Amino acid sequence: MKGEIITIGNELISGRVLDLNAWYAAGRLTASGLKVTRVTTVGDDPEKLSSAIRDAVEQSQFVIITGGLGATEDDITNEIAAKTLNRPLCLDREMLEQIKEYVQLRGMRMSASLEKMARMPQEAKPLNPKGNVCGFSLVENKVRLYFLPGVPDQMRYLLDEFVLPEILTHCKTLPVLRHRLLKLYGLSEPKIAEVLKKLPEKPDKIILGFYPHFPENHVTISLRGEDESTVIKELDKMEKEIRELLGSYIFATGTQSMEAVVGELLRRKGLSISVAESCTGGLIGNLLTDVPGSSDYFLGGAVVYSNTAKVELLDVSPATIEAHGAVSDQTVREMSGGVRVKFGSAIGVGVTGIAGPEGGTSEKPVGTVHVGLATEKEIFSRKYRFWGTRKQVKLNTAMMALDWVRRYLNGNPFLPGV
Amino acid sequence: MKGEIITIGNELISGRVLDLNAWYAAGRLTASGLKVTRVTTVGDDPEKLSSAIRDAVEQSQFVIITGGLGATEDDITNEIAAKTLNRPLCLDREMLEQIKEYVQLRGMRMSASLEKMARMPQEAKPLNPKGNVCGFSLVENKVRLYFLPGVPDQMRYLLDEFVLPEILTHCKTLPVLRHRLLKLYGLSEPKIAEVLKKLPEKPDKIILGFYPHFPENHVTISLRGEDESTVIKELDKMEKEIRELLGSYIFATGTQSMEAVVGELLRRKGLSISVAESCTGGLIGNLLTDVPGSSDYFLGGAVVYSNTAKVELLDVSPATIEAHGAVSDQTVREMSGGVRVKFGSAIGVGVTGIAGPEGGTSEKPVGTVHVGLATEKEIFSRKYRFWGTRKQVKLNTAMMALDWVRRYLNGNPFLPGV
Repeated sequence: MKGEIITIGNELISGRVLDLNAWYAAGRLTASGLKVTRVTTVGDDPEKLSSAIRDAVEQSQFVIITGGLGATEDDITNEIAAKTLNRPLCLDREMLEQIKEYVQLRGMRMSASLEKMARMPQEAKPLNPKGNVCGFSLVENKVRLYFLPGVPDQMRYLLDEFVLPEILTHCKTLPVLRHRLLKLYGLSEPKIAEVLKKLPEKPDKIILGFYPHFPENHVTISLRGEDESTVIKELDKMEKEIRELLGSYIFATGTQSMEAVVGELLRRKGLSISVAESCTGGLIGNLLTDVPGSSDYFLGGAVVYSNTAKVELLDVSPATIEAHGAVSDQTVREMSGGVRVKFGSAIGVGVTGIAGPEGGTSEKPVGTVHVGLATEKEIFSRKYRFWGTRKQVKLNTAMMALDWVRRYLNGNPFLPGV
Repeated sequence: MKGEIITIGNELISGRVLDLNAWYAAGRLTASGLKVTRVTTVGDDPEKLSSAIRDAVEQSQFVIITGGLGATEDDITNEIAAKTLNRPLCLDREMLEQIKEYVQLRGMRMSASLEKMARMPQEAKPLNPKGNVCGFSLVENKVRLYFLPGVPDQMRYLLDEFVLPEILTHCKTLPVLRHRLLKLYGLSEPKIAEVLKKLPEKPDKIILGFYPHFPENHVTISLRGEDESTVIKELDKMEKEIRELLGSYIFATGTQSMEAVVGELLRRKGLSISVAESCTGGLIGNLLTDVPGSSDYFLGGAVVYSNTAKVELLDVSPATIEAHGAVSDQTVREMSGGVRVKFGSAIGVGVTGIAGPEGGTSEKPVGTVHVGLATEKEIFSRKYRFWGTRKQVKLNTAMMALDWVRRYLNGNPFLPGV
């Protein structure tokens, strides 16, 4: 089945905002075996929008339209769609009730501009009748049109939960397209490509994709075929061969995050953790607590930005800081050990470093980072050197600390330092 | 002058690659005072490309076309452009020499597919005759068409160095386009729209844009005009009127973040800060330390996820937690006061709440959050209720805590709680 995407917004047409909606929708539709033939972006401009809808209806079997469904005066999609398709705008009672409920729950007042959101072209159906995200579908000359909000989270939710499943029920024989996504940390993209040259010859139809996703690197394995079980078998074989070459650099598959992998390991082993953060400023704790249920194993952390805080909160010895500096193996060892004792956790992790852009010296340049990990029996520490902006150094440091926990719990060696 | 952008490539239409070329070109053209009315993306598909070119020529004064100029078999732009415009493909001697030179320099051999790159529609002119980046322009019915490579570096180079200057020489009086971006926190989009209805009648040419950017809301003011100083004056006037209506909800303009605004206020007043985080897990510290130089005012924080940690690290009284629970005004007051004393900072900020998805009760549902702020003289606290995913509740809580600091330092009242 062939389809088109129309994205709407002055912020897109003027280059102020990158059009992630078109990219996301195109990727999801393609991955489902559907073919996207055109993406058209127009501003909040009645004439251009109208002609884009008319064109798409003439040439496609489905059309995804995002943006302009909101309550403000620049939201014109409902009105223009109705005009273009020669349908009256009708008030959808169900949608109106939904908006009212949403508004009431948040202690807001109903208004004419909010009511506008419930006016849709005749015979349009709300996509998500029980939810509180607006969006609707309608059929014109056998072409299925889906109108979604421009807010990326809402667009993605409706596309994945309602639009894709509905389009797919109207496809008779769809080729099977399956992907694997492997997430790696600690190997650069050229290095990964070099290692994978050692792969045994792969079937022509298997496509490997390489996507840097700072500070991770993602490798995709894609295969299209007639028969699902054959496709899965070939993907399994290829994944196994890649795993043999890349080993413990692969930390997750699919949508799993590093912090979820670490959380799962801690939970499985019944271990608790606490963190001592200097240059990351709280990022490690923030990542760990992004995982639902993390309070089962994450006891807390100390963000010790100043030297006084390191001494006061974690019992780091002033003599250690004096002799070796706050950014040193010795300090990070005392931070990791100190936070472990303070919180009474099985594992204590510590990081200290220079995130930049200021604060570097020739001996300890920006990006110098020390990571430590303490258990009841031993303390490990190592020095790393990262490159990039302040936020990139922080993120790489946090990922390295989490990777240490993963490798420690899996019995893998830590990544080599400098 | 009005124009369009056409981007070409299967990698774009399938969502495998994000279309940075369209975004870059749209931004550069808009910033130069030109108006982009539509962006069309098609695959390496003769029919779709041909109709996109035909459409654009009918409706625009200039067209930027990127992609498909290379030597591989999926590069069809030159051929399709010639067919669509009913012109023969002619070998450009100058371009051919250039390609030969490039090839020789790199020790490659000339081939038919490389020669293909020098065949352009009749009367087309190479954009960059002395360089080694292919691209050409032609004029059809007074419409200027520019064909650029899809490789982002090359596209940007030709656009900035050759295309933009040439288009601009054909503009007689170029309109000036200026934007303002106002960032708001604590008012929903419909509320903002409602409040702005009270604006005195605005000049027709001023365009207001509304962009939710969770948990912030952004309002843009755009104006196009003949003369820069008049445009700026009118924007100033409009901004002032909007500020009168939205007051302290506006926390920043342009690219400034909440954490940068808070940091700037702390620095200006010579005050230091520390944070006590429960449900945010370190996010507030992480945001504050994203700002370069934040070590000047940020002393650190305690991530006290467990009750024991609240007691041990921040001297919260176990009796308080026992009597009112960890998620309560009483606890957050002791957390804020405790962290302030522990770190010796001028201001102590605390948050405690239920981020979800588990852990809610009928009395304290998911999204219940208490914020506290302590100074040497007094302690404030208030209860809020947020909606959304775990990450959204965390982010909203962190933003609210930062907004408290901003409002406290500016002498504005805190946002009303529940």
